[in-house]
Formats: sequence, C-alpha cells, structure tokens
Amino acid sequence: MNLDHASTKPHERLAAHLEDKLREVNDMIHTRMMSENAPRIPQVTAHLIDAGGKRLRPMLTLAAADMCGYRGEYDVHLATTVEFIHTATLLHDDVVDESAQRRGRPTANLMWDNKSSVLVGDYLFSRAFQMMVEPGSLRVLSILSNASATIAEGEVLQLSAAQDLATDEGVYLKVVRGKTAALFSAATEVGGVIADAPEDQVKALFDYGDALGISFQIVDDLLDYQGDSSATGKNIGDDFRERKLTLPVIKAVAKADDEERAFWVRTIEKGRQEEGDLEHALELLHKHKALEETRDDALAWAAKAKDALNALPDHPVRQLLVEIADYVVARIS
Amino acid sequence: MNLDHASTKPHERLAAHLEDKLREVNDMIHTRMMSENAPRIPQVTAHLIDAGGKRLRPMLTLAAADMCGYRGEYDVHLATTVEFIHTATLLHDDVVDESAQRRGRPTANLMWDNKSSVLVGDYLFSRAFQMMVEPGSLRVLSILSNASATIAEGEVLQLSAAQDLATDEGVYLKVVRGKTAALFSAATEVGGVIADAPEDQVKALFDYGDALGISFQIVDDLLDYQGDSSATGKNIGDDFRERKLTLPVIKAVAKADDEERAFWVRTIEKGRQEEGDLEHALELLHKHKALEETRDDALAWAAKAKDALNALPDHPVRQLLVEIADYVVARIS
Repeated sequence: MNLDHASTKPHERLAAHLEDKLREVNDMIHTRMMSENAPRIPQVTAHLIDAGGKRLRPMLTLAAADMCGYRGEYDVHLATTVEFIHTATLLHDDVVDESAQRRGRPTANLMWDNKSSVLVGDYLFSRAFQMMVEPGSLRVLSILSNASATIAEGEVLQLSAAQDLATDEGVYLKVVRGKTAALFSAATEVGGVIADAPEDQVKALFDYGDALGISFQIVDDLLDYQGDSSATGKNIGDDFRERKLTLPVIKAVAKADDEERAFWVRTIEKGRQEEGDLEHALELLHKHKALEETRDDALAWAAKAKDALNALPDHPVRQLLVEIADYVVARIS
Repeated sequence: MNLDHASTKPHERLAAHLEDKLREVNDMIHTRMMSENAPRIPQVTAHLIDAGGKRLRPMLTLAAADMCGYRGEYDVHLATTVEFIHTATLLHDDVVDESAQRRGRPTANLMWDNKSSVLVGDYLFSRAFQMMVEPGSLRVLSILSNASATIAEGEVLQLSAAQDLATDEGVYLKVVRGKTAALFSAATEVGGVIADAPEDQVKALFDYGDALGISFQIVDDLLDYQGDSSATGKNIGDDFRERKLTLPVIKAVAKADDEERAFWVRTIEKGRQEEGDLEHALELLHKHKALEETRDDALAWAAKAKDALNALPDHPVRQLLVEIADYVVARIS
C-alpha cells in the first residue's frame, strides 16, 4: 500500500508501512481473545476491539522493533500484549467512570454488566501476561510488569487526587504517566529490547514513548476546555462537570486569590455547581493564562519526544514517529 | 512454637512448622502492598489482608518448596505473589457478587466503593506479577500466568453457567478449577519448580493442589445445603437463593422428572422463588441422593490429593499435607 504523503495522517502512513505485521497483530488479537469455555469473553472483547481505535500502542512496539532492525516474530506477541493491556484498562475504566459510551458505541458495562467488564478485563490482562512470557525475555517481563503497576497505581491515585485541590503538577504528572504514558513508553521500550538494540537506543525509545504519552494526555485535557466538540466528540467542560482536576485547572488554582479559590473549592471539591460556573471557570483559565501554559507544556513534551528520536538510527519509521509527535499537538497549535 | 498435636488443626501445625518463612511472607505482603503515591491502596488491602484468612495458599508454596529441599529466598516471593493474586480476586469477586461481608467484616466495596475494589485489585495483581518476575524463572512465570488465565476464565464461565440448567458436572469442574483449584495447584507446583524438584514430584505437587482445591470447593458447596450455620457462618440455602447452580443441584437436575425440572427452571433459571421452595429443593436433593453423591465426590478428590503425595519424599510436611486433605473433608464426614 502506497499512501500519498500529503493526504494522510502520519499514524495511517505508519500503519501502511507496518501493514503485514499489523495484520498479524490483528489475527493474534482475535485468536488470543477466544475462550473455548466462556463465549462471553470474545463477545465483550470484540465489542471493544472491533470498534476500532487506532492501534497506536501496538504500532509503537512494531515501529520500535522495526527501526532497531528486529527480524523475528515476537514483536507481534508484544504488540498484541500491549493492546490487550490497553483493552483491559479500558474495560475497567468504564466501570470505574460509569461511562456510557466508548469509541462511539455503548460501553461493555452497559451492553452486558459491570461484572462482565471486570472479569473480561481480568481475563485479557491474564492473557496479555501469558503472551509476554512467550518471547522468553525476563527484561521484557520486568518492563511490562512495572508498567502495569504504574498504570494501576496511577488509576488509584487519580481516584483520590481528582477532586482534591492540593493536587499539584507533580501529582498530575504521576497520574498521566499511569493512565497514558506508562503503556506508551513500555510499548516502545520492549520493541527495542526484543531487537537487542544498544542501551542508549532503548533509553531513547522509552523517552519517546513517555514524552509522547504525556503530550497526548495534556492535549486531551486541554481540548476539554477549548476543543471543537464536533472534532473531539466531547463537550466543552466535561472534565469540569465531572470535577476532574486536570492541568488547566491546576494551573489556575495555583494562581487563585481567595475568592477564586473559594470558587474552585465549591465547584470541584464540593461539586456544588451552578449555572454559569463553567463560563466563570473559563474566564479564570484565561485570566491566568492557564490554557496557554498548558498548551506550551504539551508542545514542550512533544518536542522532547522528537529530541529523543535523535539517538535512533536514520530510518523511514523514525521520520513517521517525528510526524506523529507533531500530529498529537497539531490539534492545539 | 511447639504445638500439641491433638489440640490443633493441621494447617495451624503447618503454620507453626513454617513460622519463620511465614513471618517473612507477612512482612513482604505489607512492604509490597505499600504505594508511595496512592495511600488508598494499602488502606483497602490492609482491610482485607489484616482481617486474617488462613494464608493457606502461600503456606502451600512454602510447604512444597520446603519438602523438596529448597533453601533459597524466593519461596517467600512466590508465596506472597500467590496471596496477592488471591486477594486481588477476592476484591474483584466482591464487586461482581455485590457482597456485603468478607471474613466477618464489611467488604471493601462497601467500605470505600466499587472503583477502589476494581483498581486496588488491579494494582495487587500487577504487584504480584512484578514479584513473580524476580526469581528469574520463566517456568514459574508460565505456570502463574496460565493459572491467572484459568482463574479469570473460570470466573467469566461462572457468570454464564451459574443460572443455566444445561451446566453439567464437566462445566462445574471447569468453574471450580478456575475459582479455587488453579491457584492451589499453581501454588504447590511453583514451590517444587523453584526447588528444582524432579519432574514426577512437580507433577505430584500440581496434582495435590488441584485435587485439594476441588475437594475444598465441593465441600463449600455441599455445606451450603447441609452445614451448621453457626460453624460455617453461612445460612443454609444461600446458593439456592442466589440461584447458583452448584454440584448438589446439578446432580439433582440430572435425575429430575418433568415436574422437578420445571421447579428448577422456575427457581434457578427464572429466579421466581416462593416460600417453601428451599424446603422442596432440599427434599429433591435428598430424594436423588445428590448430597450423598456430592459428599462422595469431595472424599474422592481428597483421597486423590493424598495419593499424589506418595510421589514425594518422606518429610514431616508431607504428613501435614495429608492431614490437611483429611481436614478439608472432615467437616462433611
């Protein structure tokens, strides 16, 4: 497949470059999600897996392995592993957030029940764990088990930090690493490890995934306050209404005077929101340049991601990874 | 600690024999459940872990390693891993079953919320996974990852099989292996593997854990229909009221005439229970000798567990494991 550069998005061009491997990943996803004994498992999984999603995380693993010259078959196992971990966390997140929609479809917890989402998530996580044992690399296992712990810890931290005005940018970063960046960085790092890449390249792959993931999440949180809802599929202010303390608000709270602080305590900590509160919140975000600063942070992380790639060999995939980092922040630039 | 044989239970004597190692396991449980970032994690975990429980599963790992002459330190890691997997499944089970009590205390999902139970369960499972990587044995990882998948699959299978009269003894056995026996057998097997025991001993350890776990669960299901509620802490007929298709009912359904079948369809499949139904169910169980046959099955599995131990070296722990198999069925003998 030869895609015209100008008309396609960089992750689509990366998918085209990795076409054969990505087909193997899709096959493995479907083979490994099967359960002879419990047909509910592939039903629930297929509902989510077949709804699409860009397969960005497994592509990162395949891309890293490819760039580092890997010619074996285990990049497919690891890419599938990464997608299963991601799917498992989505299933559990939807239970935790009581979400009704995911990828434009009703969530599994609504289609079936919370029980199925919890247990099928557990099953996918166990299957992920089985698959990652297969390449026989203890280092890969260590990276992915550490990432899993960081993800789970970040999710629990978010529960307690989300509505607590004492949450600062340091805590925010830990939450973001847990919910997004830890799996991105593990995805890229294991690609390098399986390819037996030199240590500085493995480190660079980790750094790329980490910075890309953080940038990705900050953009998401920023768009919640200034996005075009027809493009993002989200309504402006969803995070505010759900009392989620994300980076824009953290920055505004840090500069708040007493009256403003009382506003944030009432709306976020106590959740007593009234008509006009979102508009006032947006005024405060503008007044303190919280949105501009959030945007600068996202751009800085994207730049850091691109910088990391300098340690990697010149390769067509490297250029696509640069463009993906640009693309992540293009929506806010 | 020197415990008098006559007055103590065999698992208490095993605990006394393994006292030092068990203390290390308890220390490791408390160290590894900590989270610098998310204090909710040790709160939820401690609520469950400190409520007691007999630590039977970690003791099985320590016992197997001890019996096979292991003198290293990783039996403690693996025993702790096994307890963490067990605790994670309890947290998720309580969400799935909407339970209100566990080990005589309110469940974590009531004390905090379902979110915390789901996410802290995920965290403990991830920590288990980190710990099991540490001994550096791919075989151990393979055993524990396979056991995790069997557990999750069994739980999902139970969701669909529980109220379906087509569930036969084969399906029941798969569910029981998932909910109980898979972790027992993995616990004993990894103890032998870490000790580098000969293959026939490793196999015998697996068989002991598998048969002991199945026996344990069948006894539990039988006591639900004929136990002394002051001893079991459960009310007679809880499973019936919750429409759980366990072995006694499966046996009675297999021999039911049309009228009896209609009764089971109404009460279990459709859940339209009326006053007097439990009494009628008990009559049918007696009529078809379902309780006696269930008891015979439990005894046969306990005998199988003891038989397996013959392949293992003569050792004080081996005798205690024999007595534990007898003790499991003593409540119904």
